[in-house]
Amino acid sequence: MAVAVRNKNEEMGDLMPDTETELLIGRNPVREALRSGQPVDTVYLCRSSGMGDIIALAREAGAVVKQISEQKLSQMAAGGVHQGVAASVACAAYVTLEELLDVSRRKGTAPFLILCDGIEDPHNLGAIIRTAETAGADGVIIPKRRSAALTATVHKTSAGAASWLPVARVPNLGAAIDRLKEAGVWIYGTDMQGTLYTETRFDGAVALVIGSEGAGMSRLVREKCDFLVKLPMMGKITSLNASVAAGIFMYEVVRQRG
Amino acid sequence: MAVAVRNKNEEMGDLMPDTETELLIGRNPVREALRSGQPVDTVYLCRSSGMGDIIALAREAGAVVKQISEQKLSQMAAGGVHQGVAASVACAAYVTLEELLDVSRRKGTAPFLILCDGIEDPHNLGAIIRTAETAGADGVIIPKRRSAALTATVHKTSAGAASWLPVARVPNLGAAIDRLKEAGVWIYGTDMQGTLYTETRFDGAVALVIGSEGAGMSRLVREKCDFLVKLPMMGKITSLNASVAAGIFMYEVVRQRG
Repeated sequence: MAVAVRNKNEEMGDLMPDTETELLIGRNPVREALRSGQPVDTVYLCRSSGMGDIIALAREAGAVVKQISEQKLSQMAAGGVHQGVAASVACAAYVTLEELLDVSRRKGTAPFLILCDGIEDPHNLGAIIRTAETAGADGVIIPKRRSAALTATVHKTSAGAASWLPVARVPNLGAAIDRLKEAGVWIYGTDMQGTLYTETRFDGAVALVIGSEGAGMSRLVREKCDFLVKLPMMGKITSLNASVAAGIFMYEVVRQRG
Repeated sequence: MAVAVRNKNEEMGDLMPDTETELLIGRNPVREALRSGQPVDTVYLCRSSGMGDIIALAREAGAVVKQISEQKLSQMAAGGVHQGVAASVACAAYVTLEELLDVSRRKGTAPFLILCDGIEDPHNLGAIIRTAETAGADGVIIPKRRSAALTATVHKTSAGAASWLPVARVPNLGAAIDRLKEAGVWIYGTDMQGTLYTETRFDGAVALVIGSEGAGMSRLVREKCDFLVKLPMMGKITSLNASVAAGIFMYEVVRQRG
């Protein structure tokens, strides 16, 4: 049951993403992967009875749940005992927070980091990683819980940037912020209550916190910010797509740093 | 066969988008809607044989094609003769180019328009419309061909901005640009060969052209631009998500206009 089958795309047809992934089969492997916070991209089920907890875990982890035929699942599992479920897991390589802090030391520049607080949509996370790479940021920090992970979808949406730009996944964003402050980094939260972003200096050591589209930053993270910055909103709509907002803030940092 | 059934969501279940749409049933109505450039969101088929031209038209129009059961389709058609096919069409209201030019006259500000050249992904178009609304742009111009239309998906992704911000759909982007120039508007194309966007003045009458993610602007449109501007790209990735790039350019216009 704990068999891991290497993804051969030709066997999987269009069911599987085209980046390098691993297929976990059977209830326990899938359940454990979801619980441990491994970057599960898609959970494949051929029936839903008895799968309640797995479906709930998948939802919480932001994984896609796909219903497929038993025949297809058996084919994917290549003879393994799948018990009605399989999951594709991206081969993600995270760095540590200390390794992220080393990036700017090596480059000889002021740190420039992006913290994602509750970005659960993999397309948004991918677009943020892509923009962070083009904006010359050192890397991206995501929390283990309530966040999209480095899944195949994120890799794809990032246009490959997720393979170049270091991403750290931390157990606790609050503790990560404390460590960044210790290292002399200023924390800039993006919040409607903040001051206009163009009236804020971003020329030192910057960590930019991007909150979720719905709820914004969590209260704990918000309270730890040194600055709160906002975009001017001239219309009736009061929020932007998270990756668009992140891009505008990141390129203001680039502009100010010259 | 030319029956148009008003979308009742309770009948359609989760197959239909939750914005106001109209359901066209039967081959000819669906074919004509696709040909005329009506904003077809989704084409529903219960079989694919004999549907080759409809599927091709749907692809070209950027509509989603969904295979559903005959029973479901009959239920959606509410007794109408569906001939195996139906299509949901968003109730879009476009304005004319002249109406768009009137917006800034009424506001007493310099024109600020966004032209989308080949934005086929409805999520990107929705995010661009959303950002244009928050950035205080007068409106968005899209071409009839090779572009996402104001579909239900675009409305949804725009967070409702598509209901507030005027959108003009023009037969020909080149002719629209000529008209804008006549009205004293400067055309800014976004292109890797341009000058840095922060070294460009955007404080007059601005029309910003956003090219498609893959191919950028079309040659004809590119040649008509008064200025070509680019974002600095500091990493290995050489392009941004179209809606993220559009947001960064739009907010630079906002910044310069103070």
